[in-house]
Amino acid sequence: MRETDLQIDADGQLLHFLTTEGLHKDLMLSILDTAESFITIGKREIKKVPLLRGKTVVNLFFETSTRTRTTFEIAAKRLSADVINLNPQYSSTSKGETLLDTVRNLEAMHTDLFVVRHGNSGAAFMIAKHAPPHVRIINAGDGRHAHPTQAMLDMFTIRAHKGGFEKLRVAIVGDIMHSRVARSQIHALTTLGTAEVRVIAPRTLLPAGIERLGVHAFTDMRGGLEDVDVVILLRLQRERMSGALIPSEQEYFNLYGLTEDKLAYADKDVIVMHPGPMNRGLDIDSAVADGAHSVILPQVTYGIAIRMAVMALLMGGQAPQSRPTRRTRRPATTGRRRG
Amino acid sequence: MRETDLQIDADGQLLHFLTTEGLHKDLMLSILDTAESFITIGKREIKKVPLLRGKTVVNLFFETSTRTRTTFEIAAKRLSADVINLNPQYSSTSKGETLLDTVRNLEAMHTDLFVVRHGNSGAAFMIAKHAPPHVRIINAGDGRHAHPTQAMLDMFTIRAHKGGFEKLRVAIVGDIMHSRVARSQIHALTTLGTAEVRVIAPRTLLPAGIERLGVHAFTDMRGGLEDVDVVILLRLQRERMSGALIPSEQEYFNLYGLTEDKLAYADKDVIVMHPGPMNRGLDIDSAVADGAHSVILPQVTYGIAIRMAVMALLMGGQAPQSRPTRRTRRPATTGRRRG
Amino acid sequence: MRETDLQIDADGQLLHFLTTEGLHKDLMLSILDTAESFITIGKREIKKVPLLRGKTVVNLFFETSTRTRTTFEIAAKRLSADVINLNPQYSSTSKGETLLDTVRNLEAMHTDLFVVRHGNSGAAFMIAKHAPPHVRIINAGDGRHAHPTQAMLDMFTIRAHKGGFEKLRVAIVGDIMHSRVARSQIHALTTLGTAEVRVIAPRTLLPAGIERLGVHAFTDMRGGLEDVDVVILLRLQRERMSGALIPSEQEYFNLYGLTEDKLAYADKDVIVMHPGPMNRGLDIDSAVADGAHSVILPQVTYGIAIRMAVMALLMGGQAPQSRPTRRTRRPATTGRRRG
Repeated sequence: MRETDLQIDADGQLLHFLTTEGLHKDLMLSILDTAESFITIGKREIKKVPLLRGKTVVNLFFETSTRTRTTFEIAAKRLSADVINLNPQYSSTSKGETLLDTVRNLEAMHTDLFVVRHGNSGAAFMIAKHAPPHVRIINAGDGRHAHPTQAMLDMFTIRAHKGGFEKLRVAIVGDIMHSRVARSQIHALTTLGTAEVRVIAPRTLLPAGIERLGVHAFTDMRGGLEDVDVVILLRLQRERMSGALIPSEQEYFNLYGLTEDKLAYADKDVIVMHPGPMNRGLDIDSAVADGAHSVILPQVTYGIAIRMAVMALLMGGQAPQSRPTRRTRRPATTGRRRG
Repeated sequence: MRETDLQIDADGQLLHFLTTEGLHKDLMLSILDTAESFITIGKREIKKVPLLRGKTVVNLFFETSTRTRTTFEIAAKRLSADVINLNPQYSSTSKGETLLDTVRNLEAMHTDLFVVRHGNSGAAFMIAKHAPPHVRIINAGDGRHAHPTQAMLDMFTIRAHKGGFEKLRVAIVGDIMHSRVARSQIHALTTLGTAEVRVIAPRTLLPAGIERLGVHAFTDMRGGLEDVDVVILLRLQRERMSGALIPSEQEYFNLYGLTEDKLAYADKDVIVMHPGPMNRGLDIDSAVADGAHSVILPQVTYGIAIRMAVMALLMGGQAPQSRPTRRTRRPATTGRRRG
Repeated sequence: MRETDLQIDADGQLLHFLTTEGLHKDLMLSILDTAESFITIGKREIKKVPLLRGKTVVNLFFETSTRTRTTFEIAAKRLSADVINLNPQYSSTSKGETLLDTVRNLEAMHTDLFVVRHGNSGAAFMIAKHAPPHVRIINAGDGRHAHPTQAMLDMFTIRAHKGGFEKLRVAIVGDIMHSRVARSQIHALTTLGTAEVRVIAPRTLLPAGIERLGVHAFTDMRGGLEDVDVVILLRLQRERMSGALIPSEQEYFNLYGLTEDKLAYADKDVIVMHPGPMNRGLDIDSAVADGAHSVILPQVTYGIAIRMAVMALLMGGQAPQSRPTRRTRRPATTGRRRG
């Protein structure tokens, strides 16, 4: 069974949220629309809705990520769920069967939704494959594979600031090779009909055959950023430095760090995005991070709404009353599954 | 004052839950019956009841145990309590008086219920002895002494699958010597009238005089498992390996690990239990763990209900409306206390 | 901008709570009065009030302090807030700009109130200076600078046991030099009109010019404790021992540890306070800690009420119905700000 199939039920509804790869455009729009209805909740005097009252959400983070875990924790609590935070020691679950034992135990406690972060590609998929019918899985990042809620909050940000995708040139800059974020973004951008998706990286950080995903690859910022409407930076893992993949922090910043000078190649209304945490002076210059084109902090705000939306859709909850009606939720077209 | 007395008030009601030793059969049945009423809650759409609303439950785990702590956290939240998780560094409370200072401070914050896990036998008892009248203590494992909620969830499992205790042969297998779980199980099983309780272990892991607890001791699985209705495995602490108590993992598994071959000595309707986490290939073979006789995952489900029941009984709460009436809660008979 | 100004809005209301220095007496009394109304809540069957329902409180503890964090967590939950506990690694936020990135991210999640503990003096002030209008900051201890909620709970304790401040002699004993608690207490005590404030410490732990804060300095307990109505002990950090600041634990206890003998110099109705955790046998003798003059555990109880009061006042909430009327909340007099 493919993930694409596993995360959709027979009626085309979202069952788990594991990847943006193969996810139908209608479902992506449904997530974006639902998130939009939750944006207003964050601004209310009382920021809670009872959609997940009595549900137990387990943040199961085999890899530590305080930031991502916090966004899911806040999102779940605003939906009135009970939240359990767990950070199992990686070592004690190094064998797949023991990872499953851990998960089966939690499922036996009648928990409802797992938010899983794991260093191994495919971990969330494996958990979903073995989950009982009442349990839902969200992939909060698995190895180098996927980080779909990050991609969807990025799509939300682009739509909120640019209105749509069809006329846009979008460039993703940084360590494309090792980035689950880039992978999930590319699938989402192409599915949503983005006019042109580019990736920019040193040759050592560009995976071979990346063009097959429907993107244009660049190794220089001048060419890659030319006339783009959206720049999405990736966080450069400093540990890559120790290897031979990139020369030095200074040289990386000179060539690929986003400065105002390089940003001038882009469209004058370009927006700048970064999944955080930023390495100021390495992947981005502070003048850009805090500048007029930056939508980095709005991304964080939208991230809460996207996670609330995905949780609510998985748990079968209706979006709150203020849901916009400009896009109606259509069931995914049948006939595209079991491919 | 003995624990038996400390955990019961003058009216025979449960005041703290420290041990199954000396606990009256009626109270054990009351816990089991109350838990039964909570089983349905775990299956509801909204799994919360307001029995402990506004109460503060402190998970005070001097020994780390994510699994046990999680079950208490989920149980307390389903009862609508506020939960505080604390893992005091063992070193900073090495002196008894400082442990009491820690607890007194938490009590002064008007917390209501402490779930205590501690490496020292008697720690929960000491805390209960000094607790002010409004505070309740649950022993979630103290040294080699007792782990009464684990024992009660095991009793619940046996009753759920076998209907009662009077006609049963039950065998407990593993490191009887160092196990607080075994100790609490033996007291519960004998009190509930189990026909025969056996323990099976290598001679080095069998405490001298164990027969005085009313059990039959075996050093071989063939004899010990013959015709039993229930097998309860214990988790073998791998750190015992480094000592001279058992020869090797492989030899231990050959002699005492539960395989389908050995299970064939037991009754054909035998159930297999394990408190978890399992050491697959050491104390249990995967074919048995995941086999038709295993009730290991139901144990986890029942564990939530038992912990909800104990918390509800300690806080004076009534069980929810769906409580079964086939056993009525009788006050413990007087005259057996202050013995 | 000074902290004094930053924490008060144009109408004289509390905007953040960063320091007791320069805080107007009326606002201090308002905090004490509001806390009094919350004292009864801790004794109720259901200890929750909905004042902060739907609000998100972030405990942002760069320095670990389980005790202080727990009091804020309990206080926030009793006000029905959602609580997020974060312990960022100190190293990853060593640069000021990165600390601000962390905070800005959390603010973008529409969190409402930050409780900040940080090893650097001024950290909470810096965060407050950059906070958006809807966010409130409570300083839960910054370097050697301030710990205002601790000081206010101490004021509450004194008022509860002594009725007022005008006729009192109060002595603060211990490591005055390094103590943010002492600094905040001195500002609060002098503002509230305490007749005489004394500090007692070895010369090496007395900051030069301490008298400028309006206190009398003593290096011996006999002189310093003579006829005092209140003794406030400070916790001696054992790590000071390794330096040359104090001779030895035994000698420090002999000279400055509070014993019944030394307490006899004080007024016969003296109360003894300690912010905890106590070093029994170093800064206090057990006979005094557990004796008739000790109000150390009531301090903890009052601490919850004070933190509830500060949170409620910052979030604009009204105190619950049972609020006493003997002191009315007056707005701070105008004309004293922007000094």
